[in-house]
Amino acid sequence: MDIKALASANPDHWARAACIRTLTLDAVAAANSGHSGMPMGMADVATVLFDKHLSFDASAPDWPNRDRFILSAGHGSMLIYSLLHLTGYKDMTLEQIKNFRQLGAITAGHPEYGHVKGVETTTGPLGQGIANAVGFAMAEEHLRAVWGKKIIDHYTYCIAGDGCLMEGVSQEALALAGRQELSRLIVMWDDNGITIDGNVSMSDRTDQKARFAASGWDVFECDGHDPAAIDAALTAAKASSGPAMIACKTHIAIGSSAQDTAKGHGALTDDKVVADTKAAYGWSHAPFEIPSDLKAWWESVGAKGADARTEWEARFAALSANKQAEFTRTFAGEAPKKLSATIKALKKQMSEEQPKVATRKASQMALEVINTIVPETLGGSADLTGSNLTNTGGLGVFSPEDRKGRHIHYGIREHAMAAAMNGMALHGGVKPYGGTFFTFTDYARPAMRLSALMKIAPVYVMTHDSIGVGEDGPTHQPVEHLAMLRATPNMNVFRPADAVETAEAWELALTSTTTPSTLALSRQGLPTVRTEHKTKNLTAQGAYVLADAEGKRQAILMATGSEVAIAMAARDLLQAEGIGTRVVSMPCWELFEEQEEGYRKRVLPGGPVRVAVEAAIRFGWDRWLYGERGKREKGGFVGMHDFGASAPAEELYAHFGITAEAVAAKVKALL
Amino acid sequence: MDIKALASANPDHWARAACIRTLTLDAVAAANSGHSGMPMGMADVATVLFDKHLSFDASAPDWPNRDRFILSAGHGSMLIYSLLHLTGYKDMTLEQIKNFRQLGAITAGHPEYGHVKGVETTTGPLGQGIANAVGFAMAEEHLRAVWGKKIIDHYTYCIAGDGCLMEGVSQEALALAGRQELSRLIVMWDDNGITIDGNVSMSDRTDQKARFAASGWDVFECDGHDPAAIDAALTAAKASSGPAMIACKTHIAIGSSAQDTAKGHGALTDDKVVADTKAAYGWSHAPFEIPSDLKAWWESVGAKGADARTEWEARFAALSANKQAEFTRTFAGEAPKKLSATIKALKKQMSEEQPKVATRKASQMALEVINTIVPETLGGSADLTGSNLTNTGGLGVFSPEDRKGRHIHYGIREHAMAAAMNGMALHGGVKPYGGTFFTFTDYARPAMRLSALMKIAPVYVMTHDSIGVGEDGPTHQPVEHLAMLRATPNMNVFRPADAVETAEAWELALTSTTTPSTLALSRQGLPTVRTEHKTKNLTAQGAYVLADAEGKRQAILMATGSEVAIAMAARDLLQAEGIGTRVVSMPCWELFEEQEEGYRKRVLPGGPVRVAVEAAIRFGWDRWLYGERGKREKGGFVGMHDFGASAPAEELYAHFGITAEAVAAKVKALL
Repeated sequence: MDIKALASANPDHWARAACIRTLTLDAVAAANSGHSGMPMGMADVATVLFDKHLSFDASAPDWPNRDRFILSAGHGSMLIYSLLHLTGYKDMTLEQIKNFRQLGAITAGHPEYGHVKGVETTTGPLGQGIANAVGFAMAEEHLRAVWGKKIIDHYTYCIAGDGCLMEGVSQEALALAGRQELSRLIVMWDDNGITIDGNVSMSDRTDQKARFAASGWDVFECDGHDPAAIDAALTAAKASSGPAMIACKTHIAIGSSAQDTAKGHGALTDDKVVADTKAAYGWSHAPFEIPSDLKAWWESVGAKGADARTEWEARFAALSANKQAEFTRTFAGEAPKKLSATIKALKKQMSEEQPKVATRKASQMALEVINTIVPETLGGSADLTGSNLTNTGGLGVFSPEDRKGRHIHYGIREHAMAAAMNGMALHGGVKPYGGTFFTFTDYARPAMRLSALMKIAPVYVMTHDSIGVGEDGPTHQPVEHLAMLRATPNMNVFRPADAVETAEAWELALTSTTTPSTLALSRQGLPTVRTEHKTKNLTAQGAYVLADAEGKRQAILMATGSEVAIAMAARDLLQAEGIGTRVVSMPCWELFEEQEEGYRKRVLPGGPVRVAVEAAIRFGWDRWLYGERGKREKGGFVGMHDFGASAPAEELYAHFGITAEAVAAKVKALL
Repeated sequence: MDIKALASANPDHWARAACIRTLTLDAVAAANSGHSGMPMGMADVATVLFDKHLSFDASAPDWPNRDRFILSAGHGSMLIYSLLHLTGYKDMTLEQIKNFRQLGAITAGHPEYGHVKGVETTTGPLGQGIANAVGFAMAEEHLRAVWGKKIIDHYTYCIAGDGCLMEGVSQEALALAGRQELSRLIVMWDDNGITIDGNVSMSDRTDQKARFAASGWDVFECDGHDPAAIDAALTAAKASSGPAMIACKTHIAIGSSAQDTAKGHGALTDDKVVADTKAAYGWSHAPFEIPSDLKAWWESVGAKGADARTEWEARFAALSANKQAEFTRTFAGEAPKKLSATIKALKKQMSEEQPKVATRKASQMALEVINTIVPETLGGSADLTGSNLTNTGGLGVFSPEDRKGRHIHYGIREHAMAAAMNGMALHGGVKPYGGTFFTFTDYARPAMRLSALMKIAPVYVMTHDSIGVGEDGPTHQPVEHLAMLRATPNMNVFRPADAVETAEAWELALTSTTTPSTLALSRQGLPTVRTEHKTKNLTAQGAYVLADAEGKRQAILMATGSEVAIAMAARDLLQAEGIGTRVVSMPCWELFEEQEEGYRKRVLPGGPVRVAVEAAIRFGWDRWLYGERGKREKGGFVGMHDFGASAPAEELYAHFGITAEAVAAKVKALL
């Protein structure tokens, strides 16, 4: 690599890109950890992108119509931190750069959404960013159709590395993007031929360009160190009719002794290596020093979008007050005010009609009314639309032919669905929900964890939530998935018992702005247990007394979802024998945990024996069985102890002993 | 579709394939659930495959050198059940077919490994089977090199549907197979253009043939209803130099009114539809009736491999007694006898030397000795070899150039790695282990669940198991993953405290034959806490008293992994204040749960306060904090309450309050 020739061919560009490279070298050396090679390798591409293509205004990072820039190869976080600092994002001070990867700094090891404006999504787990980007681009297409080009009309750019492209989620995402003809999506592949273990060819010889083309992408390539070539490729990509991939041939850790090696992927911290590399760049400034002329140029890049932004603001101001308010509301993620009354009316109707329906059906009944008054919902299913019941009348199917369509056929791609939903939620202006079978939470989980970590609020509609699945057998019967999600911080897991609780759960999921929601819904029909209408959303308390003991309270039955009706039947059996029995419905443990201790004690007072009923494994239930301070309450559990089996659902409930009789017997054994 | 023309063109073939189609129709109708369309559509392909290509012997289904047949599109389970019944697998009686999807039948909704010979792997979650198949083929390549072609030399055939190919894991698997040039792997794609939601084109327009070719596959195609064309494609695929994909153009639910529709994907149960379809086939027999001439022909297919099998047995008998015993041992999944003594010696050495090493390093130290005496280990890493420390001296790298190599560069493909490990374990003759960061258990989870469900025993080497990861930040810091895996039935989760416990965990993982193991290993160095050598494997009891109280026992500290040393330091603080404190190391909850109650009570007696220390969230710990019967023991927890952060590890431990001082303070507050 003839660095000198590169530098002399385009000296201005070279110096600008060197700002990124040297900030990276200095920050990684100061932290004594991190990834130097990727920002060094992609600095030229990023410089051209930010200078000539990305539409943004560093002084107004929330401008809704900005282009989105996603660093899927998040380990190269110093690339984006450098860019934000250089272009003048006010929170990204030099102090923050100097404190790269330190406690309390916004410059975390991987880019964390919420730490700093300009980081559009949390990346680091590979492949997530490119799938997020597909969601961003779908949201943009939808909102452009809804609001018109004057209000929403932008590109989504994504830098992805070899790791992103090896992860399976990338295939799901790119196939989805190809099908949806997302022409505003541009992925720049950092084609450096290196992974942590060595050369990419050790583990992969895929022709990535052919792979993307096979799914309908327009494919371009460029020398990733030639600014004119980069510019030409980006210009062509923007004009493409499908999603565009640019293979950017780069040298990882360019100019260092570790260039083009796996060592260059990691942290270059050796003083001499850093010094020699800077010397090779012709860079003679002190650590972290950016000469003022270069900083001024970069700040002009950060400011160049101001005109576009103010012009947009003028167009926005020309909208009617109602439209402005609606836009602002939806981008703030706030549910419409009338949602509350609508849900109350639905609950009243359900309590009166007392339908025996599966909660997946109850969910669809709720969505039928929700989707008419919450226009920002963008639903979908991973090829189980008729099972998840995520579609409602008149939503339309989102496609190149109908960008206003609000139901998405994600295909058999649970992981990309969840990651795209993250992208949509992060884009703003839409409220994504999507469905699959609860057991396939496994496939979606890497992205679901990121919803929770990023404090965003998509809604996961997970139906067929237990052995109630029946004949499809143990692969399709979740038993540990409730525990898995309950163990995840900042995830509300709702398992509603009937149509009323399902409506309440939906209200909470739609009004949540910082916590994602999972609705675990039954396949099988369930009786209405909330037969007395309450205007209050009882599910908001997480758990509540559904039926109190008659006479002396000797037992408390705790249950969720489809097992609440079993607990109620067990209560009948016990009361008939004079055993006063309370039934507590616990549709959302996380919200119950958030209640004040006094409320929790009123719902679960000490003294009576406690039995939990849930068609899942016991893991986690001891928290409630034994009380808050380890009091002497005896506790028992009726549920699953292993994987399920293939048989009709009712037979399985009997086979595994999850019956009212078993619950009553357990109570009597404990008394 | 001119069924009559098809039937008359190849009447013998047609009648044979019709056996599969009509058994499927009858079984699904009887069960009133299931999937009719796929077995109907792929019956011709399957008939030709079993008749002319698949080398097997229905009377000896365990024959190690049989070709493997994997139905990745597991919802079409009646395809394989029909084939097993027709060809004479003795357990697959007509009664079982008639009891399709019923409780206790071996004919579960999706094919379940272990229910019946001939089902080589559990499929149903889409994409798993094709990734398993890659593992089967890798095991075959390796064992062919190790044992020679006379002993191992077979093909792996896989039928995959559109859903399998849309799942991201398929990309990981096919790219891995392409890189590894697995020429004995043949995937038959059921190209029927239909998914549950409708036409494939609604969600995918990928040119699958181009996609496979982009990763180095040889691609063939055929009319999936023309036996000569199918035969020609299979013949060509067997001769290919790379893995082969055959696009089989088929009609789902062929000959029925639901042909070529999404309806045809599911259960055809309407009497008239079933009757009309059989009539279209020219089939006039009673439900479940297979005419004796046809059954005889199929049984001849099931018997045709007997010669090959007996010839193989003769070759096997010509091996030395030692080699025969070694082959039998490795295919039985039994560890060598000398493993126990080797582990004991290593433990003794570690207790004497008392190294301060990360448990990931301790794992490598264990593997160094293990891999020399357990020749069937087949290790690997998802591009984190130098971090997971899964490689050891002289293993060699598995590749087309070195099939005897025993370390695999899986690439950045955690999901395919886990699924391939399942395939290897199921093939037999090898003991697979593979590593990634513990947080990326999320990516591997769908396959890890299947390891547990199938009762097979691969070993997951999951390093960087807590906030001890440090600067990489919360995306890379597992907090809920211990709970997630502990909640999974039949998964042993080991979190060893030091080099001694790590060696013990490896011994248990290697001797397990029906339970997969996950080793959660630290990034950071840990002191040796097992400073007194014990020949007994204490980890086998799941939990044990590491240090007892001096004086009156007032407190019990429970800890795992890197927090055991913190508990020991807290014990020092407490004992210095005269508070008698026991420390219980709990490296494997599942094994502790399996101990008899008396042992558990001796380790965790009632009375003292209990505090658990684990750098993970509390979820699940209440099981141990409050005792087995809800006794009055007070319990506290020192650990994580949310996601982690990006900073040096020691700072994070202090920041999150996971310190000896905090543990001691918690004990004193409870006393």
